[in-house]
Amino acid sequence: MNIPFLHPDMRPELSLRIEKVRNAMLEAGIPAVLIASNANLFYLSGTVFRGYVFISAEAQPLFILIPPSQTPDTADTATIHKPEFIPRLLEERGILMPDCLGLEFNDMLYSDVERLKAAFPGCSFMNASPVMTRARMVKTEYEVECMKVDGLHHAAVYSRIDKCYHVGMTDLEFQIEIERILRLEGCLGFLRVAGSRMEINMGSVISGDNADVPSPYDFSMGGGGADPSLPVGASGHIIHPGDAVMVDMNGGFNGYQTDMTRTWFLEKVSDLARKAHDCSIRILRVLEKMAVPGVIIGDLYRKAAEIVKEEGLEDYFMGHHSQAKFIGHGVGIQLNEQPVVMERNKTPLLENMTIALEPKFVVPGAGAVGVENTYRVTPDGLENLTSLVEELQELPS
Amino acid sequence: MNIPFLHPDMRPELSLRIEKVRNAMLEAGIPAVLIASNANLFYLSGTVFRGYVFISAEAQPLFILIPPSQTPDTADTATIHKPEFIPRLLEERGILMPDCLGLEFNDMLYSDVERLKAAFPGCSFMNASPVMTRARMVKTEYEVECMKVDGLHHAAVYSRIDKCYHVGMTDLEFQIEIERILRLEGCLGFLRVAGSRMEINMGSVISGDNADVPSPYDFSMGGGGADPSLPVGASGHIIHPGDAVMVDMNGGFNGYQTDMTRTWFLEKVSDLARKAHDCSIRILRVLEKMAVPGVIIGDLYRKAAEIVKEEGLEDYFMGHHSQAKFIGHGVGIQLNEQPVVMERNKTPLLENMTIALEPKFVVPGAGAVGVENTYRVTPDGLENLTSLVEELQELPS
Repeated sequence: MNIPFLHPDMRPELSLRIEKVRNAMLEAGIPAVLIASNANLFYLSGTVFRGYVFISAEAQPLFILIPPSQTPDTADTATIHKPEFIPRLLEERGILMPDCLGLEFNDMLYSDVERLKAAFPGCSFMNASPVMTRARMVKTEYEVECMKVDGLHHAAVYSRIDKCYHVGMTDLEFQIEIERILRLEGCLGFLRVAGSRMEINMGSVISGDNADVPSPYDFSMGGGGADPSLPVGASGHIIHPGDAVMVDMNGGFNGYQTDMTRTWFLEKVSDLARKAHDCSIRILRVLEKMAVPGVIIGDLYRKAAEIVKEEGLEDYFMGHHSQAKFIGHGVGIQLNEQPVVMERNKTPLLENMTIALEPKFVVPGAGAVGVENTYRVTPDGLENLTSLVEELQELPS
Repeated sequence: MNIPFLHPDMRPELSLRIEKVRNAMLEAGIPAVLIASNANLFYLSGTVFRGYVFISAEAQPLFILIPPSQTPDTADTATIHKPEFIPRLLEERGILMPDCLGLEFNDMLYSDVERLKAAFPGCSFMNASPVMTRARMVKTEYEVECMKVDGLHHAAVYSRIDKCYHVGMTDLEFQIEIERILRLEGCLGFLRVAGSRMEINMGSVISGDNADVPSPYDFSMGGGGADPSLPVGASGHIIHPGDAVMVDMNGGFNGYQTDMTRTWFLEKVSDLARKAHDCSIRILRVLEKMAVPGVIIGDLYRKAAEIVKEEGLEDYFMGHHSQAKFIGHGVGIQLNEQPVVMERNKTPLLENMTIALEPKFVVPGAGAVGVENTYRVTPDGLENLTSLVEELQELPS
């Protein structure tokens, strides 16, 4: 492979990540983990390969490759032909066979987990997914730098979005031109999400009434989509005067990503839609100051809901016919990481969490409005990684 | 939802599919299945929703929705709030609780399967994935018609690909313009694949030496990619005179898809690359006649390998440094369906299987060459769903 698998420059960063994983293992009482999902392999190695990473408290981590991925054998790498050979490999390397092994129950297919279980007879198994989620939830400085780069590219593209529009376009045609300038800016296109339920191309552009059509996927805003096989996002209808047009597109340029939404309108937009959009900005300003390390995450949701109530906009908050129960989420290698900013989240914010906040509204007759930024949690509040004008903007007509 | 869930016009087609699933259940000895993966929900309902389909030999199928998906209760639909309520729902509907239930072990996350298992105490479980794979492997007339539509759009876009190119472009810039015209033609963008290992944006454009860089994903051709987080396909290098440029992009327009590859070159290309490309076309012509129902699928692979050997091209067949061990695969709702056209496949071809055949070569100094078409198996041989000029074509310079 000519990809930088365990690149020397990455070694200190990767060691830091391994330590974070070990701390999370210790907290969870899992003595060893065998990691296999693409997102977690990327976290632990700096690239995606076919194979596994074995991490225990004592031994140094072992990177196990399966062809076509391969690497010369070294103290911490080996190539084998199938996972059934892992126990023998550990033995050869003098690594004590664990009596309890963590596997990624939330990130791997049932049959893949069962195959690994069968390869470790006499072993008991625990869920390693929460360990990895927890380690990844607080970003390293290196990861934050990656996300800052994402945010710069993301904002640079969004600053040119109005140039993609011409009168008479459908929401989908508008989205396609945005996809193109994102890709030309270096966006990788493929959107890494956790879980198996979220399917989408490169994000969504939601215009007018389509905002109120719920989607079966876990995105904050729905949209009916252009085909029943992918019922989410742009529907293929022409954008009309009076429509709000919400743009929430892929910001992944380097294995990390930012999540960012801005809203436009064509010719005119209702006062209620303007009010809701301004409320979204107001919520962000309040939460940016409030969200310091130690604050209970559910309180962020409650504060947002309080502002919404004060302005009498409850009926439109996070949807109209169908309302999402969160206003934000962690973001990093995957679009939907921990923590989830929802009412029942009783855990505290931690420094260097990276979270997207997206207080949005669906206003009948106009559509979806609101702003989403991706932030880093700092002792002084939230640092915005996706700075760009937030006001409702008019499309050229 | 304003999406056509169980649309009346689709009912006869969906009944036919349920019958195919029941036949596969009978063969596998599975009395009842509970289906939950997006691809299989689409197969059984005509759309994607959040929820389940319960199918047994006796009772009529029950479509179970979880909000935000919902539907008025009817004889064959119900909305509940979590999967733990399914046993009670079955009881209320007078459906005998199965003592053995099939779940999709190869298509669902471990934790999702375990959650369903816990909801059915006293029940034993079998793998329903092969049942669904088997039912979907032979297409209905309706499905073939969908794929013919895909093939027409796919070929229409490929006929305009040379207009996307200008001298000095990178492989990635070329790919981005192809993505755009595919999307404008109606391509949905999101590529549904089986398994958890394959990650890609909308397909790949592989130029020059990049063809010989293996990828960890299960695609027939690799490519190093533009970033270590997504090591597949176009690398971002400028296309040079003498490079072969292989285009293998997404052909999904309606929930089904065709898989199609054509190859271009810039200014000139080596005689060896031309010879290999012509060999690919020759293999397709031979297999198109040979592949009638009843033929053992492994024999197709052997015939292709025989032709390759006859022409002395073994070193370049399906890769050079790293060679794939198949020359084709089923295609439909997912890109990688059954059957796999590989040497050890001892099963016979069946009428109305739809398979992509992609005898490709990687020629050092030139790159990847070859042709891929998607075919329907008919009593007279293969019907090509992706007809278009197959010769090596020169890019405008």
